[in-house]
Amino acid sequence: MQEDKRLLKTLYGLPNEGRPPFWFMRQAGRYLPEYREIRAESGGFMDMCFSPEKAAEVTLQPLRRFDMDAAIIFSDILVVPYALGIGVDFVKGEGPKLDAHDTPERIAMLAVTDVKEELELLYEAIEKVSSELPKDKTLIGFCGAPWTVATYVVEGGSSRDFAKTRKLAMKHPESFQHLIDVLVEASVIHLVAQVEAGAEAVQIFDSWAGVLPEGEYERWCIAPILAITEKFKALCPAVPVIGFPKGAGLRAPSFGLETGVNAIGLDMCVPLDAMKYISEAAVVQGNLDPILLALDKQGAVDRTKQILDAMAGTPFIFNLGHGIIPETPIENVEAVSQTIHAWKP
Amino acid sequence: MQEDKRLLKTLYGLPNEGRPPFWFMRQAGRYLPEYREIRAESGGFMDMCFSPEKAAEVTLQPLRRFDMDAAIIFSDILVVPYALGIGVDFVKGEGPKLDAHDTPERIAMLAVTDVKEELELLYEAIEKVSSELPKDKTLIGFCGAPWTVATYVVEGGSSRDFAKTRKLAMKHPESFQHLIDVLVEASVIHLVAQVEAGAEAVQIFDSWAGVLPEGEYERWCIAPILAITEKFKALCPAVPVIGFPKGAGLRAPSFGLETGVNAIGLDMCVPLDAMKYISEAAVVQGNLDPILLALDKQGAVDRTKQILDAMAGTPFIFNLGHGIIPETPIENVEAVSQTIHAWKP
Repeated sequence: MQEDKRLLKTLYGLPNEGRPPFWFMRQAGRYLPEYREIRAESGGFMDMCFSPEKAAEVTLQPLRRFDMDAAIIFSDILVVPYALGIGVDFVKGEGPKLDAHDTPERIAMLAVTDVKEELELLYEAIEKVSSELPKDKTLIGFCGAPWTVATYVVEGGSSRDFAKTRKLAMKHPESFQHLIDVLVEASVIHLVAQVEAGAEAVQIFDSWAGVLPEGEYERWCIAPILAITEKFKALCPAVPVIGFPKGAGLRAPSFGLETGVNAIGLDMCVPLDAMKYISEAAVVQGNLDPILLALDKQGAVDRTKQILDAMAGTPFIFNLGHGIIPETPIENVEAVSQTIHAWKP
Repeated sequence: MQEDKRLLKTLYGLPNEGRPPFWFMRQAGRYLPEYREIRAESGGFMDMCFSPEKAAEVTLQPLRRFDMDAAIIFSDILVVPYALGIGVDFVKGEGPKLDAHDTPERIAMLAVTDVKEELELLYEAIEKVSSELPKDKTLIGFCGAPWTVATYVVEGGSSRDFAKTRKLAMKHPESFQHLIDVLVEASVIHLVAQVEAGAEAVQIFDSWAGVLPEGEYERWCIAPILAITEKFKALCPAVPVIGFPKGAGLRAPSFGLETGVNAIGLDMCVPLDAMKYISEAAVVQGNLDPILLALDKQGAVDRTKQILDAMAGTPFIFNLGHGIIPETPIENVEAVSQTIHAWKP
């Protein structure tokens, strides 16, 4: 059965037969009217995540339109802190607000909870998607990388410079290590539960991999992802892991070797030459610019062809370099999808 | 006379004799009580920039304490849009606010003004510093890179994702090109005027070099800096140019070759191995983490030694990887300065 799954084959390192597999980050979202409809009748973002019917429905919506090779479960990286008992709220137009854990005292009170029970409804959504997904499509589960999730936990939301988190990590490294350790354990439980519910591959999103200097990067970004990968692979040896170290820059080429992930997602600032170079040692996923996709249909189609041509012959997964933006016209996504389907090496 | 100037010799590509030259980005600033005193009696940030006495005084303050090899004139990258007639205001605790030029119509009205007349008081400050600076110190002038300055002009201030600027550049490339061209011309006038007033080297700050994908990066980040470097060097052939492409990541190694700058400033996310590799083809400046400097004196001293040891034998300038932060204890800066002075290859 897995032999029909284009994405899984690429993740196992097999060369693509014809066009590469593709999916889009934040595949389900506000650019789709059918998503906005369900969103409008929901209490809020988290309510949608915890409503198996709705979460499954919006997960499947994009595939009905664009025939991607994978569905990524509709959820958020902040469900893990939520499962740990940290208050998480999505305020419209402001992004996530968390009950900030910014002192050693508050962090000391965090411990691994019964994540599987807390997030049961998410796994129900995955089961639903799994049962409805066409046999040639792959279902992707995910979590945030501990460093990235920790920044939200410490800052209490988004941040521009992560100063509070970096200061806490420097002033109280044992305390920050405790937070990271709890996030590692909880993330492994969450990933494994997603696989048990039907996920066939997982992605670890490290949106803020790019902010740490040498030393801290290895300790807070690389080591926890390696810990997750090792623990996860011990339990789910056949399930491929994609790492997405956004903004890792000069550190992107060695990310795969250092963390043990099966594939590296590259952001839109990685040039094609570097993508090719990195793909000599790893499965690469990337990296169309979401702003180009939103604003310039022909430009996005042209760049898609450039990327496909450059990556021909390597085990490559086409994706965006960052999440799709809400104002993206559907016809642009359609045009890029058709370009990929029509492309021949 | 120049033979006594440690920084200039390194910028000319000569190997360091003993310790490398050093200075700190945002060398003058709120971490110094003598700065805060002058700041308190000033009307605001821009008033300080345009008061030759005060600007000269705060420029020289750090050298009295730490014996750096260079003084960088106290000013801001936004004096160039100010000179172009764009309203600039520094709102306490909120960062800069500009009269946003975010439509083709507004941008079309921008033209190169008499920058030298508009910024006359800045050059007076440079003359003052120049006359008081010890002979072995180098006076550095600077400007922002056109891409970075353009983001402030279009967004009307700081931004998290630069979406407005990127959309304008994509929807109206001729219009955005006009803005960039005006900034290139104005920046060259400003840099040359700084040299005429006494600056002996200049730095181009491209704080947001890291956000553009391939194609746009070359057009909006690299090409305008190359244009500035070429025009500037035609007028001031002996004055070295340092480029600081913050966040350039995988693109940092080729930045020198592509832009014609004499030296590349590297941010704190560039690992030492990469710094060494890049220094094989270019003079490198960098890259102690300012948060480490602020929070951990011993850690900062240890890392300083690591950097010095790693870069021994190359034409290297020690600096921070980003601007010094206000809460930095003076004794930490002192300890790092002493470490550099005491270091032997």
